[in-house]
Amino acid sequence: MLYLIGLGLGDAKDITVKGLEAVRQCHRVYLEAYTSILTVGKEALEEFYGKELILADRETVEQEADNILKDADVCDVAFLVVGDPFGATTHSDLVLRAVKLGIPYKVIHNASIMSAVGCCGLQLYSFGETVSIVFWTDTWKPESFFDKIEKNRQNGMHTLCLLDIKVKEQSLENLMKGRKIYEPPRYMSVNQAAKQLLAIIQNRRLQGEESAITENTICVGLARVGAPDQKIASGTLEQMATVELGGPLHSLIVTGTLHPLELEMLQLFPIAGSSFEQHACQRTA
Amino acid sequence: MLYLIGLGLGDAKDITVKGLEAVRQCHRVYLEAYTSILTVGKEALEEFYGKELILADRETVEQEADNILKDADVCDVAFLVVGDPFGATTHSDLVLRAVKLGIPYKVIHNASIMSAVGCCGLQLYSFGETVSIVFWTDTWKPESFFDKIEKNRQNGMHTLCLLDIKVKEQSLENLMKGRKIYEPPRYMSVNQAAKQLLAIIQNRRLQGEESAITENTICVGLARVGAPDQKIASGTLEQMATVELGGPLHSLIVTGTLHPLELEMLQLFPIAGSSFEQHACQRTA
Repeated sequence: MLYLIGLGLGDAKDITVKGLEAVRQCHRVYLEAYTSILTVGKEALEEFYGKELILADRETVEQEADNILKDADVCDVAFLVVGDPFGATTHSDLVLRAVKLGIPYKVIHNASIMSAVGCCGLQLYSFGETVSIVFWTDTWKPESFFDKIEKNRQNGMHTLCLLDIKVKEQSLENLMKGRKIYEPPRYMSVNQAAKQLLAIIQNRRLQGEESAITENTICVGLARVGAPDQKIASGTLEQMATVELGGPLHSLIVTGTLHPLELEMLQLFPIAGSSFEQHACQRTA
Repeated sequence: MLYLIGLGLGDAKDITVKGLEAVRQCHRVYLEAYTSILTVGKEALEEFYGKELILADRETVEQEADNILKDADVCDVAFLVVGDPFGATTHSDLVLRAVKLGIPYKVIHNASIMSAVGCCGLQLYSFGETVSIVFWTDTWKPESFFDKIEKNRQNGMHTLCLLDIKVKEQSLENLMKGRKIYEPPRYMSVNQAAKQLLAIIQNRRLQGEESAITENTICVGLARVGAPDQKIASGTLEQMATVELGGPLHSLIVTGTLHPLELEMLQLFPIAGSSFEQHACQRTA
């Protein structure tokens, strides 16, 4: 049996009782380590689960999936995923490969950032398409996510923006020389994401376009959702560009039309010295 | 402290380790019993948690919230919610009331149907606004959800349809006579929801309107997601009208534009004797 087990979002104890029982009975346990992270490392999980974990980076999962599935028809193998196994990243490839090999699989769900963001008080019902904001480079500054956020907002919908993660990336030089030397991991912060959005707004303004998203659009920054030191900050997009929410992972929400109850919830998390209330009043006036 | 604790979607063991520890240390433990259900009853939860649970129906939560929060500033009170506490239904009212009373609160997240539906292989990224399909009566047949599904589909997005739950409802007669006699609970099934959608399509066709959703639109029916006897069935909307997926809770997805990998996943769950593949091929041709 292949078990795909969600670990939730915070630390070792966010696994479900069912998930923990499955991990403990498995012969081999892989930890998917390239699409998300918990606030604790592999060692803390190993100690709590009482099991050795095998780190599975993108290469392992994409190129060595058959190793992961080896003998899973006769013994139990677990594939651990931060959040939910079918949350922000689906692991359909692994499931399809298992099915083709005649290996049964079971999914043990858990909290995903896709639904846990509801803790800021915005209704999950009112979210449109989710987008990913990627790190810009000097030569590559895609804007397609902005158009989707804008479309959601025009339809009154909020947008959850998942922020880029760069794990086990090679520099161009190391890549070209075939050297397996990796850069330190990078996680996009709310303020970095907000700055990219502001840059797009300003660019478009220079070209005479006025966006449905402005410096005053109400946004919500979230960091380490589900962990004891989780942070939520609501304010304008401009304020998001300077907010410091600490360690990863961060997510950003660009709001659409706010229901009065949503607004009341957001006001529990104002950015210090925020002019949020003023803007919020303007919006709902 | 007020703990809002998600129970996940299946049975007693779908609570997280952190959630279970919190439940066991709480002075009073309420179980929210009107927006969703697990596949096991209150007694099974009480046995597993080793705690007596107080059922909280809609009346209790809306009218007696102060009782729930009583002394929560000096002792720990848990409020248990099937799924995630901020999933399909947010409990913002309770949180706001706690904050006003100076009571700290903590959220322990879990799987929500809003993200667990990813197990059918459709990308959560590609879902538009979520809708609720309500039971029609002889005199009340709202269609607003259909317009939202249609809009999502025109934008290429999938739609998660949450299906109506009627718990502790009074008949009109009992309501008027002030008798607290309640009807048996009712849970909308995938085939009931599909029939209502087909009725709307046919009505509109009679009025000369052709919908973006037809009898041949690929849909996915899901029942008891996360439970050992979970069922997933994919096929056309017309096929959904006859599919039998067993006990509650059910959800229905109306697909938008299907990615080849999504299609491949859906084909793992074909309705028996399905002409799904044929339709799917037409769609992607």
